[in-house]
This record gives sequence, structure tokens and C-alpha cells, in this order.
Amino acid sequence: MAARTVKLAVIPGDGIGPEVVAEGLKVLEVAAARHDLAVETTEYELGARLWHRTGETLPDSVAAELAGHEAVYLGAVGDPTVPSGVLERGLLLRLRFDFDHYVNLRPVRLYPGVESPLAGATPEDIDMLVVREGTEGPYAGAGGVLRKGTPHEVATQDSVNTRFGVERLVRFAFAKAAERPRKKLTLVHKDNVLTFAGELWQRVVREVGAEFPQVCVDYCHVDAAAMFFVNQPARFDVVVTDNLFGDIITDIGAAITGGIGLAASGNINPGGTFPSMFEPVHGSAPDIAGQGKADPTATVLSAALLLDHLGVPEAARRLEAAVAADLKTRTPGEARSTSRIGDDLAARVAE
Amino acid sequence: MAARTVKLAVIPGDGIGPEVVAEGLKVLEVAAARHDLAVETTEYELGARLWHRTGETLPDSVAAELAGHEAVYLGAVGDPTVPSGVLERGLLLRLRFDFDHYVNLRPVRLYPGVESPLAGATPEDIDMLVVREGTEGPYAGAGGVLRKGTPHEVATQDSVNTRFGVERLVRFAFAKAAERPRKKLTLVHKDNVLTFAGELWQRVVREVGAEFPQVCVDYCHVDAAAMFFVNQPARFDVVVTDNLFGDIITDIGAAITGGIGLAASGNINPGGTFPSMFEPVHGSAPDIAGQGKADPTATVLSAALLLDHLGVPEAARRLEAAVAADLKTRTPGEARSTSRIGDDLAARVAE
Ligand SMILES: CC(C)[C@H](C(=O)O)[C@@H](O)C(=O)O
Ligand SMILES: CC(C)[C@H](C(=O)O)[C@@H](O)C(=O)O
Repeated sequence: MAARTVKLAVIPGDGIGPEVVAEGLKVLEVAAARHDLAVETTEYELGARLWHRTGETLPDSVAAELAGHEAVYLGAVGDPTVPSGVLERGLLLRLRFDFDHYVNLRPVRLYPGVESPLAGATPEDIDMLVVREGTEGPYAGAGGVLRKGTPHEVATQDSVNTRFGVERLVRFAFAKAAERPRKKLTLVHKDNVLTFAGELWQRVVREVGAEFPQVCVDYCHVDAAAMFFVNQPARFDVVVTDNLFGDIITDIGAAITGGIGLAASGNINPGGTFPSMFEPVHGSAPDIAGQGKADPTATVLSAALLLDHLGVPEAARRLEAAVAADLKTRTPGEARSTSRIGDDLAARVAE
Repeated sequence: MAARTVKLAVIPGDGIGPEVVAEGLKVLEVAAARHDLAVETTEYELGARLWHRTGETLPDSVAAELAGHEAVYLGAVGDPTVPSGVLERGLLLRLRFDFDHYVNLRPVRLYPGVESPLAGATPEDIDMLVVREGTEGPYAGAGGVLRKGTPHEVATQDSVNTRFGVERLVRFAFAKAAERPRKKLTLVHKDNVLTFAGELWQRVVREVGAEFPQVCVDYCHVDAAAMFFVNQPARFDVVVTDNLFGDIITDIGAAITGGIGLAASGNINPGGTFPSMFEPVHGSAPDIAGQGKADPTATVLSAALLLDHLGVPEAARRLEAAVAADLKTRTPGEARSTSRIGDDLAARVAE
């Protein structure tokens, strides 16, 4: 019997979500077992089907049950039959906000053997960690509309940035930077234009930075950062940024490291008051759903972030090593099915 | 004597600005003369020096004089000795806003012979026109700070989107799309999260689109667009987007087409009530200023946009052809000086 059992809530979600989560769980369970950890899962049917049946995205009773788990593992939400944003806001963002996932952790790593669209890029060039804010900024949902439908209509959309929210994120990012060999932290913002928010972010980075004299601090406007992700990715080690900038630059990060099929993320509540949530960066890809074509690797790598969060880094490294080994063997155009990739990864983890 | 004389206000600005503008003017004058247009320039010393001397970024009297010109040609503003944002907002953005430059036009083209950081990218893959809003959105300067310097500080930053402002931009973008062979327009936004602004943009695109049945309309979340710029740039023809998203994606556009040294832009007031302004996308690059190392090509290409705006498209095409021919001859690591590149381009235009 395993020394410890973790209670994991599983939300397969929509589109390819169920397929990739099935493989993620397969690999996660083997990796956990190798390190004396059992995984007890409870599955929740949330997403488009529930919404069509009941009009609900996240019933309060379900939210309360989820809160009783140590972590949440999510596939993807979103479906063409549901108006844009309903599931994203009603389920995904609601969980991030309700569970105070103020750290959205997104590693951007080029694995050996993976083809980057950037000519000549090597794994040494691209190895960063984006620490994206997850509970405020432009995602606050603040704003409004005046005189809708008239020529005088005005729609506003407000970014809300708090000292509390920025400081705890920035401190987390510095701590991560301090643990890494390069010890470099880059703030990405647009302080020459977004002066109110930008000045707060800059000041917090300066003040918290005083606690981390070993970390080298840099600043980059978001437009320049977007460019440097493409033509000088080696500039970056840890990147700290707001919710919207983080959304954009981590998709560039996914693009330069071989695509969204490999990009993992963790929505972390560092204090542990609420369960953290792990999910691939990609969406539900309804066009290829149910065909066994989806690459489960991003979901598997998200399980590595989960294992790290649970304090079992050896299992996380084992899982990442399995992925790294698998990626090295891939050939362009090979067409292993979703479950075959999961089987292969599970077998490597079991080795 | 030329049939027509255009009155051009020139703002060389800071850093490499004066160097690249000198070459831009050299080439512009030759191209204009070939098409019976004389250019009469008045130079304005705005930027870091003026600010240090007088504390002013754009004296009202100068703004009034600039308004009396047909167009403005600008190098770059910004200097490390001036606090971040002072010149950007006090000069560059003030001109864009005061002169109602609601269209920020940014072609993203890969010229033959230019090396893209994207492996295997060809000129056929990358040929788009980004139509960025220039006078509202997150650049409005709206927002504020509460309880500054306390643990309870809140900083907000508000995006202001008007029906009037969005509609005129979107109509301009559709008209551009209708003129191009592919006739495709992609709205880039984040309507699943930024719901108030996003819904307005979507609705305006739908409504204005009804006037342009020949144009195929697409939508892309900004995060996905940032990714597709890198791994599927051929998806895009005309892109219409807000001020901040446009800022970010056009820098990715610059990166994938060989860097910021080649990216041109026009800040257009289509009605002609105010002078439009043409400038390279790059900044003042103080680290290489005064050394003759800057590439003036982006500034030269901005002059092509100016010639188009002045209604002399033959001169614009001639200038672009000269740039295209020059780019084909470049070899990696070649080190022609700024003025040498200008001379070579002027000679080609004169041919
Ligand atoms: C689906 C969407 C709401 C979400 C976001 O914007 O955060 C996604 O793009 C992501 O990056 O996880
Ligand atoms: C300098 C800055 C204010 C400007 C902007 O954000 O628009 C620049 O980045 C640009 O793209 O022209």
C-alpha cells in the first residue's frame, strides 16, 4: 500500500479534454506509485454538456466538493455550441478566482529533439518559467457599456491591480528565480503607457527585489518581450507579468517550443488554502475531438507540475524524463494515437 | 520645377532618430522628384534635448505649427536620461491623439532575401497588413491609484472603446482588405475575457462587414494570434485590432520579418483634418546612436507609406522596389553604414 493517498478532482471537460486527461492520469498514477503515492480520483462532469442540460457552469455544490480535494486536474473547456466566454469565465476563470490561483505557472522549455519553428534554436536557448498573475488585472471582469447599440456607445474594460495581489506574485517569482541557476527575473509590462498599473508593478519589483539581492532584475516592455521571445529567447529566465500579458506571451512561448501540444500549466494557490489546478495550455480543439489525434503530452507535463506541487519532485522529474525521452524519438509526421502516446509514456515511467 | 510641393514636418528625435531620418529624407526626396513632387521640410527639435532644456515635450506653439504641414516624418523618441514614458506620452502619443491618428498602419511583409527567424518561412507566407487602432483603448490614459504606497493600494488602468472609434477603424480595415487579393480580415481581440470591449468589437465587425460581402471575416483571440504569427503566419491577410494588442502583435510581426530594423508604420488621419505621421516601428536605440550602425530601412519604408498617403503610389512602389532590391543583395554580417545604405537606396530609386 502507498504511504500516502492524494485526493484529486478530475475535470475532463470538453473536446479533446477527456482523451488527454485519461492519458495524463494513466501516466500520473504510474509515476506517483513509483514514489509511494496513491492517487484517488473523483471525476466531475463540467463543461458544455452540463451547461446544455442545466444552464450551469459550476454548481455551488460542485465547487464546494472540489474545494475538498488536494488538487484539480483539468483537460480543457470550451465548445462551439456554447457562446464564447461562457465556459471560460463560468468554469475555468471562476475556479482560478474562487480558488485564489494567483500564480499561473507556465514553463517554456524547448525539449531536445523537438523542432522549434525558430531556425537554429537549441534547448539551451529556451528555458524559462513564466509566472503569470491569475486573479486580477484585466481579467477582473470590471468595466461596462454605455448607450449600447447607439452611435455614442462606450465600452470600458478595466484592469485592477492591487499591491497585495502584485506583491505576493512577485515574491513567488523572485523565490523561483533564486532557485534557478541563472537567477534572473524579467518584469514584463508596458509602464510607459499603462502608467498607473505599470508604476505599481515596477515599484513592487524594486521593493521585493531588495529581499533577493542574488537575483538579477530586468524589465521589458510587453511589445519588445513578444519580439524577443521570437528572436532572442535566451534573454529570459523567470518572467513575471500580469494576467493578460502572461496569456499572450505564454502562447508565444508555446509556439517557439514546438506548439501548444506540449505546453503545461499550473494554477497555484501557494498557501494551500484551496486546491491548485493543473491543465494543459491548449484548448478543447473540437475539430479533432474523439479521434485519438490529440497529443496528451501537455496534460502529462501538467501532471509533473502537480507532482511538484504535492511535494514529490522525484516523481515529477521521472515523468518529465519520460516525456523528454519520448520526444527524442518522435519523427515528423508520425501518427501515434493519443492513447498510444500515453501507453508509451506510462511504460517509460514504469521502467 | 516640380508640379507639386509637399510641406513635411520632420522630427528627428532621439538616439538613432536623426541618423535614420536623414537617410529616409534622402531617399524620399529622390523618389518624390522622380514623380514630380518636391518635398519642403521643416525640422523640429523635439525629444530628450528639448525636455532637458525646457521641461517641455511638445510646446503648444510647435503643435500648432506641425498642424500646418501635410505630414510629419518622425525618427524615434526616448532616452535613458528621461523617465520612461515622459517622451512617449508627451510627444509621440500626444501627436497620435491630438492629430487623431486613429489608424496605425503596419505592414508585415517578409521581403525576398531577408532571413526570417522562422525556419522555412517564405515571402508568400508572410504578407499582412495590421490595422491597429491609435486613439483609444488601453492607451486612453484612464485609470488611477488609491492608497498609494500602502498595503491596500489599488491601481486601475482602463481601456476605453467607443462605437465611433471602433467603427471608423474597422471600416478602414475592411476597405483595405477589399483591395487586397486575398480579401480576408481577421479581428484580433480577447472577447471571451474582455467581454465589454470584445462584444463591441465583434458587433462592429459583424455590422460593418455587411457592407463588404466580398471580404472573408475571421476572428482570433490575441493569445492564439500571437502563436499563429509564429507558427502559421500565412493565416493572416488584414488584421484589425485595438491599440495595445496591435502594439504587441506588430512587434511579433517585426520579429518574424527580419527584425525591427525593417518595420515601417504610418499613423494615419484618413480624413486629412490633421497631418498623418510616418515613423519606423523601432525605438531610439541609444546604445548604438551616433555610430552609423542603425539600419535606416524601416524609416525609408515609412516614407513609402507617406508617399501612398500623399497619393503618389508610383513613387511609393519605386521606393519599395529599391528596398526590395537592396535587401536581396545583403549578406549576413555585412556592415554598411547608415548613410551608405541610404546612398545605395537613393541610387536605386534614381535609376
Ligand atoms: C480560455 C482562456 C480564458 C484562458 C486565459 O485567457 O487565461 C486561456 O487562454 C489560457 O491561457 O489558459
Ligand atoms: C513608444 C510606444 C509608446 C509605442 C507604442 O506603444 O505605441 C511603440 O511601442 C510603438 O509601437 O509605436
